[in-house]
Amino acid sequence: MNEVDLKLRIKAAVEDARAKNPMAPSITNTVTQDFVANAQLAVGGSAAMLYLPDECEAIASIAPAVYINMGTAFPFYAETLPRMIRALDANDTPWVLDPVGIGMSTLRTELLHQMKNFPPTIVRGNASEIIAVARLWGLIDAQSIGKVRGVDATDDVESARSAAIALARHIDGAVAVSGPDDLITDGKSIAYSSGGSPLMTKITGGGCSLGGVMAVYLAVTDPFTAAVTASAAFNAAGVFAASNTTAPASFKVAFLDALYENSAHIVVTNALRLEEI
Amino acid sequence: MNEVDLKLRIKAAVEDARAKNPMAPSITNTVTQDFVANAQLAVGGSAAMLYLPDECEAIASIAPAVYINMGTAFPFYAETLPRMIRALDANDTPWVLDPVGIGMSTLRTELLHQMKNFPPTIVRGNASEIIAVARLWGLIDAQSIGKVRGVDATDDVESARSAAIALARHIDGAVAVSGPDDLITDGKSIAYSSGGSPLMTKITGGGCSLGGVMAVYLAVTDPFTAAVTASAAFNAAGVFAASNTTAPASFKVAFLDALYENSAHIVVTNALRLEEI
Amino acid sequence: MNEVDLKLRIKAAVEDARAKNPMAPSITNTVTQDFVANAQLAVGGSAAMLYLPDECEAIASIAPAVYINMGTAFPFYAETLPRMIRALDANDTPWVLDPVGIGMSTLRTELLHQMKNFPPTIVRGNASEIIAVARLWGLIDAQSIGKVRGVDATDDVESARSAAIALARHIDGAVAVSGPDDLITDGKSIAYSSGGSPLMTKITGGGCSLGGVMAVYLAVTDPFTAAVTASAAFNAAGVFAASNTTAPASFKVAFLDALYENSAHIVVTNALRLEEI
Repeated sequence: MNEVDLKLRIKAAVEDARAKNPMAPSITNTVTQDFVANAQLAVGGSAAMLYLPDECEAIASIAPAVYINMGTAFPFYAETLPRMIRALDANDTPWVLDPVGIGMSTLRTELLHQMKNFPPTIVRGNASEIIAVARLWGLIDAQSIGKVRGVDATDDVESARSAAIALARHIDGAVAVSGPDDLITDGKSIAYSSGGSPLMTKITGGGCSLGGVMAVYLAVTDPFTAAVTASAAFNAAGVFAASNTTAPASFKVAFLDALYENSAHIVVTNALRLEEI
Repeated sequence: MNEVDLKLRIKAAVEDARAKNPMAPSITNTVTQDFVANAQLAVGGSAAMLYLPDECEAIASIAPAVYINMGTAFPFYAETLPRMIRALDANDTPWVLDPVGIGMSTLRTELLHQMKNFPPTIVRGNASEIIAVARLWGLIDAQSIGKVRGVDATDDVESARSAAIALARHIDGAVAVSGPDDLITDGKSIAYSSGGSPLMTKITGGGCSLGGVMAVYLAVTDPFTAAVTASAAFNAAGVFAASNTTAPASFKVAFLDALYENSAHIVVTNALRLEEI
Repeated sequence: MNEVDLKLRIKAAVEDARAKNPMAPSITNTVTQDFVANAQLAVGGSAAMLYLPDECEAIASIAPAVYINMGTAFPFYAETLPRMIRALDANDTPWVLDPVGIGMSTLRTELLHQMKNFPPTIVRGNASEIIAVARLWGLIDAQSIGKVRGVDATDDVESARSAAIALARHIDGAVAVSGPDDLITDGKSIAYSSGGSPLMTKITGGGCSLGGVMAVYLAVTDPFTAAVTASAAFNAAGVFAASNTTAPASFKVAFLDALYENSAHIVVTNALRLEEI
């Protein structure tokens, strides 16, 4: 994909999400649900958070795209998630995985392991999480670098480059590595999206809401464009919000406002660099 | 009820909620709990969110009013909700039902079905949800119009008019249909409350927090007045907030502030139209 | 401890939390998780909320400090909490208990009862909750005053003085009683921290987020200093926020901003009075 094509697709994604108001339901952590839902609404989507196995199964067949975030696992996810991912697969419903907390428990590891064969369309995480998923699925050397500390990355984005490429090729979709500059790849090209603000790391849910917004865009475009569009929208909104505030709570309000007020023009012209692999 | 009487009751409800600080506990969805609780506090009430069967049963006998929102059903609600609604019934504790997600799963349908015989005092929802409840309980023709898409209405308020009246008569309470203009009925009169802002639909939890606030007012007044007072308070606060902001996150902050700063005078004089049926 | 020593320790705690970015994971209620996490981030810490028994057990051995808030009990806490508190004990991991909802159900009472023998390092609550814990554990006369109404205190801080001292001695840690002036004791000294704002009681989660921040400080200092530092940081931030806003939602934003912008100097010089017992 060349840069002109990508930018045309980004423009279409921003506009289509606002025009079509796609519902992108989530299984997501309880901490940041409010932020995820409001970010999804801000870009034109619609939100619903679910827990019950049969509800998740049912929505997998009608939703245009789904978001699964492993941030807070409940015991009954042992039933909900396997049924959900099978239903997503059976219905060819695209979905975004945020593997927060990978490695924290037997249940999470088991669930993430199953997703190798019922793969997501986009994986979004910080560098450590992307490396951990690629390693869990045997896509990269088990000895390669990469540590996860709860929800925080201890690796930088570039260190996850080869893991991200391997993962994108395995899922035949896109992988987004969040960091100071975001790296997004479909296994053929790499896009770097810049901007944002360090204040984004001083509020909870920046990554979760980014994943939720990727699911909204995934309802209206291809995986690579969806991941790049969401990253660009977040980076542009982060820069704007940080120009108005210096502290995290007012930054969060300004950020969500900016996400809502982002035009397609603003998102398209946010700093972007495209590389062939 | 004539308009002068209703306005006197609204005034008393606003003032009594601030004076008595009634606790209106909730079983409510995990997405918007923070918004629900803060809205309840803003009008003078007190909040508590519960999940355990015995806690819900116990609080049903001491709370002056309760709020039940079906937005995110957990598996253990199969035990919690039947015990809760029986205890509410046994104690004549008034309660508000928000039937979000009606029709999404077997469990929800089964639970909502049980509520026909242990009925709420107020039902609040969008037009599609009100129609769906009335249909589920066999109060209107099963072929009548009305579709629900997750949490969003696809029908307009007026289309739910007959369903709302039938439902209000069945529960011998009040039904509130949220929309650009809110329709509230007790089966004898219909009140239309106007105001608010389209930004209310760009944030998550507007309907949930309205239901929670109805429960606070239900602790101090009759069902019809409680539903009208909450709607008027929300509409007045929405208009004021929208005069200060044009984007959703700052709107939400301004809205909650305005809800807190609403005087009884502001709520009483918010645009209201009363019709006999 | 004399006042000069205490102030040096407070200064070090504020600075160390920012320098070391300690992770203070929580089992906490679903209503205020977002507020807890963002407050923890604002003072320099890192947050993670957990539910699964094995995850809680595992994190007890690696976290520098933990926060347990009983605000919304789930059925599976019957397994999660006993395993968690045993693991905390086995690993000598310090932790903060917020006994919200004490007395509301058999499960809560049973769980809190077990904590007598696997005691927390800090207990934070309002006066009624502190009295209730001391009474439940047989540390004070069962007939002594003290009533809890859901999440709200019906007793004033001074009435919990002897209960707080008895409790601090039993746990060999610190007890913090929240109120207009906060009382913090380690069983030898009592510190009174003043400031804050009445608006703090008009938003949900003020107490929960204070407990979460105590856990962050507990990761870098002793229990008494941790409890005093968190109280002073909250009181200073509350005063500053209330100087800029008169309504609760904008107060909450301003409060979190102020918490983030608090310097060690501001926290150290917040009104503090120290008494030997």
